Amino acid sequence: MAQFKKVLIANRGEIALRVHRACQEMGIRTVAVHSTADASAMHVRLADESVCIGPPAARDSYLNMAAILSAAHITGAEAIHPGYGFLSENADFAEMVEAHGLAFIGPRAPHIRMMGDKISAKDAMRRLGVPLVPGSPGALESLEEAREVADRIMYPVLIKAAAGGGGRGMKVAHTADELEEAWRVARTEAKAAFGNDAVYMEKYLDRPRHIELQVLADSYGNVVHFGERDCSLQRRHQKLVEEAGSPILSAAERDALGETVTTALKELGYRNAGTLEFLWQDGQFAFIEMNTRLQVEHPVTEMVSSVDLVREQIRIAAGEELGYDQSAVTFTGHAIECRITAEDPETFAPSPGRVNTFHAPGGLGVRVDSALYSGYSVPPHYDSLVAKLVVHGADRPQAIARMARALNEMVVDGIRTTIPLHQRIMADPEFQSGEYTIHWLERFVGMTK
Amino acid sequence: MAQFKKVLIANRGEIALRVHRACQEMGIRTVAVHSTADASAMHVRLADESVCIGPPAARDSYLNMAAILSAAHITGAEAIHPGYGFLSENADFAEMVEAHGLAFIGPRAPHIRMMGDKISAKDAMRRLGVPLVPGSPGALESLEEAREVADRIMYPVLIKAAAGGGGRGMKVAHTADELEEAWRVARTEAKAAFGNDAVYMEKYLDRPRHIELQVLADSYGNVVHFGERDCSLQRRHQKLVEEAGSPILSAAERDALGETVTTALKELGYRNAGTLEFLWQDGQFAFIEMNTRLQVEHPVTEMVSSVDLVREQIRIAAGEELGYDQSAVTFTGHAIECRITAEDPETFAPSPGRVNTFHAPGGLGVRVDSALYSGYSVPPHYDSLVAKLVVHGADRPQAIARMARALNEMVVDGIRTTIPLHQRIMADPEFQSGEYTIHWLERFVGMTK
Repeated sequence: MAQFKKVLIANRGEIALRVHRACQEMGIRTVAVHSTADASAMHVRLADESVCIGPPAARDSYLNMAAILSAAHITGAEAIHPGYGFLSENADFAEMVEAHGLAFIGPRAPHIRMMGDKISAKDAMRRLGVPLVPGSPGALESLEEAREVADRIMYPVLIKAAAGGGGRGMKVAHTADELEEAWRVARTEAKAAFGNDAVYMEKYLDRPRHIELQVLADSYGNVVHFGERDCSLQRRHQKLVEEAGSPILSAAERDALGETVTTALKELGYRNAGTLEFLWQDGQFAFIEMNTRLQVEHPVTEMVSSVDLVREQIRIAAGEELGYDQSAVTFTGHAIECRITAEDPETFAPSPGRVNTFHAPGGLGVRVDSALYSGYSVPPHYDSLVAKLVVHGADRPQAIARMARALNEMVVDGIRTTIPLHQRIMADPEFQSGEYTIHWLERFVGMTK
Repeated sequence: MAQFKKVLIANRGEIALRVHRACQEMGIRTVAVHSTADASAMHVRLADESVCIGPPAARDSYLNMAAILSAAHITGAEAIHPGYGFLSENADFAEMVEAHGLAFIGPRAPHIRMMGDKISAKDAMRRLGVPLVPGSPGALESLEEAREVADRIMYPVLIKAAAGGGGRGMKVAHTADELEEAWRVARTEAKAAFGNDAVYMEKYLDRPRHIELQVLADSYGNVVHFGERDCSLQRRHQKLVEEAGSPILSAAERDALGETVTTALKELGYRNAGTLEFLWQDGQFAFIEMNTRLQVEHPVTEMVSSVDLVREQIRIAAGEELGYDQSAVTFTGHAIECRITAEDPETFAPSPGRVNTFHAPGGLGVRVDSALYSGYSVPPHYDSLVAKLVVHGADRPQAIARMARALNEMVVDGIRTTIPLHQRIMADPEFQSGEYTIHWLERFVGMTK
């Protein structure tokens, strides 16, 4: 299959720009889609063509499958890149795209569907030999069953929505006394958020790290991993800072995990980019979920492995072979990403509005992925992420020092951003030590408020 | 010797910022110096301290040794980084800095002096086994001697100022008929530009490439090279586009040249950063000069070798050992730098003035070294370089495609810049083929005007 001539990017903001950049470097023309709120957005300004697909509300524009498919039809795009969020993990959309004779730049629909349901994802991974956290074999039928499983795996335990994500429908029970309320609240939240009150149970790891593995697979059974990312710095289950590699993982541990995961995905017949997310504690990995798409934090992997993950996604979707094997993937130095959001750095209240001046930091080892420009108004309708600041250094201390100086140079004038929070994190001795868990940031934010 | 606590940066513009960034990442406080024209310059805004050293004219400020040494004394700086240009290759300044008990972040004064005189530089390199272009053994005593040498090495020949640089005092004679005038004009120009009419002769290579080798040497005899840069794209002997590595050099040729050069510099007892510049034609290298300082185009080397050359310069000046040998230096991918100047892209007329909007390109593999910001006024008093756009790609075609898309994203609104010229160069099939000589760009500029 020949390379695409034109790709539609079904997203907005920095990730639409990210995909556009990869396309432009490959000589592929791009079609931007946008809501009426995004008419003057950077991704629209830079794309070769653009189509307005609806009003500001995402359900009427960036989630509007018919409008997006029409835009692809009108412009003659041959493929659709969904970015992350929005329709990127919607198996129905992937099917519709392919039913219309277009390529979906992502996995096959059955795999998106399988991994979208957290229970079927775990079933699959268990069968494929990937380590899981101890828990219920599937959805819990009753409070009684929940009690039995909790007694077996031992408290603390976590009750989680089967259809969930982003921390909604997730409750901890530290003791048997807390179980009934956790059960009730988790089910109510799950029903409200996902229209499905099925929940399951897992051992609650009290001081885990979040470590994930980036994988690429072509259509011919070649699967290669690009090492791990440590995304333990989270607030309300949202990642704020990501690193590659993890400060606590040895090369041997990475290789062993990589071997397990690539073997599993070969067996599964997986295609395109994917990320397996794990909790890690005391040397043990426990699979939590798989993201069947490009992730926000993919740049740290690109910085240490010199791969262009979006280019690879596009090549794979066009039917090309990877063309290299695991031995070709090597790692240099250390990378860190700070997610800079349009939020108050202390209260996390959203802070949309006009950016009078945007000045990106520069120099050696600094990468900025942002759709901001001077005079741009951040709309209130979408995710608050406005810039990803990514640095690469010879080692972790150098990367931290580089991030600190880059944050110091960055100007986003007119709105509040989380830049001051990231500056405090980089300056913190505990963060610098690398000894943190997924609970560290919430305590840090509380302390420094 | 312990690391410095405070460094004075005796320069302005992007290179002052470059040095500041390295210092800040090393935990070293910085002192900026500036003329009255640069009071609101970026290097002044970002430095920890700043001192005004004189009026706009460079001879009264950035070349004012006494004022700079006073600034170092007042602020308690322990070392001075001279950047490039200005005092960076002034042996007297290096001596004065050290006589005042400060460290000069650069080579020893005798080496600066030796390489500053183009004839003594060649004498030294000839003695040390570095290949030279055929020519007169030293300064030409008379027109008669010039005729004899030209007959021996064969026309075309070049007459060059012994104290020269930047193309001044340099004339070609294609035949014996042209020799007398070339001799006369070169001497007159040399006298006017450098106060010294001594000239020498070299074989004129009609289709050479400019290839240079980056070297670092510590105070303990360790010398390592970081590969070559191809700087063949020049206009009036000023480099416009630089690459690492050279499109025409094999790894074996690089290794052989590197071996010759590092052996020579060990023998010489050279210290700190340096670059040996060569003409290359038909597989033969001919040494032309050595720059005893950081070069404008050093970032392309940093991109392919993952070294921070300024950090290394500072470490060496503080008395640290390199701590690695040649085998630790490896190269990944291909890098290109475009020098973006405040000049009309067709006439090259200077275009200083207010930059209403500066927007730097971003994304994977893009580095911007610039002291521009929105609202900054480029002063008319100094060099017209306002930004270095540097890209890194897996290979040369990818780097060219990345540069093209980065140039496309870059906004410098309010003044004219050479961005359109660089866009045309990147799109040109002959440039893309890698088959160019140092004469290519002048023809290209003539053709596309």
